[in-house]
Amino acid sequence: MTSPLGMPDPKLDLVLEREIDVPVELVWKAWTTPDHLKNWFVPKPWTVTECEIDLRVGGTFRTVMRSPEGDEFPNLGCYLEIVPNQRLIFTDALLPGFRPAPKPFFTAGLLLEPTATGTRYTAIAVHADEAGRETHEQMGFHDGWGTVVDQMVAYIKAN
Amino acid sequence: MTSPLGMPDPKLDLVLEREIDVPVELVWKAWTTPDHLKNWFVPKPWTVTECEIDLRVGGTFRTVMRSPEGDEFPNLGCYLEIVPNQRLIFTDALLPGFRPAPKPFFTAGLLLEPTATGTRYTAIAVHADEAGRETHEQMGFHDGWGTVVDQMVAYIKAN
Repeated sequence: MTSPLGMPDPKLDLVLEREIDVPVELVWKAWTTPDHLKNWFVPKPWTVTECEIDLRVGGTFRTVMRSPEGDEFPNLGCYLEIVPNQRLIFTDALLPGFRPAPKPFFTAGLLLEPTATGTRYTAIAVHADEAGRETHEQMGFHDGWGTVVDQMVAYIKAN
Repeated sequence: MTSPLGMPDPKLDLVLEREIDVPVELVWKAWTTPDHLKNWFVPKPWTVTECEIDLRVGGTFRTVMRSPEGDEFPNLGCYLEIVPNQRLIFTDALLPGFRPAPKPFFTAGLLLEPTATGTRYTAIAVHADEAGRETHEQMGFHDGWGTVVDQMVAYIKAN
């Protein structure tokens, strides 16, 4: 089954691809279990103070990220596609129940493929326009999403 | 399987419910086949000049509506959930491939249930805020969506 996201558009999308040495099943669990996700989802010393996951299409994906200064940043969206151990797609353009969101920013896809040594991990961020892609890039997409993959792998190995 | 749309919110959503005397299978076909949909989807004398349907999650739902004066109004969105003969959900908040749209307006759900004499037909329009609901109401949601149900039933019976 091909991904509904289609091929990334370099002008509008951001892609992070990594080979990691943990199995797809544990990556899936890390992404879909609040008590796991909170431990690695944002680059430290930022923290995730709240995480709510209703793992069904149209279901809630909500996090609250907290800066080292104590400012909190809520994120609310919903899941669009759930293929266990293969593909997880969610967006902040739709609130839970598919309600259009007031401030859409991006749709994200996590694609997992088993390899001989673990997982080929691909994260894709899909934006409405070039300005959205640029903003996300300047917010540190590549460093940020790369750092949290390292954090996730370390967390999986330690648990 | 419950609908991902959940219960309608009267402040934000619009609902049209009708009992019609044509079977769910033909309603489903009328909604998912471009050559059928073009015949009834907008209140006459408006017309649908183009219709593109890629009936998969994240797939294109595109129409062009033409006013009696000849002005054309394109609509582009994608499907979110497809349960044949039961439920069709689409949105203009995401373009095909789940890309956030520049001007989101609403998510729509078509719910079909077989009855002794035909179909219980429910259409739900889900908006980001009260202003969106009000705009849609003033655009003539109830009359418009009601009229096109009549047109659809007449079209189904004639074909």
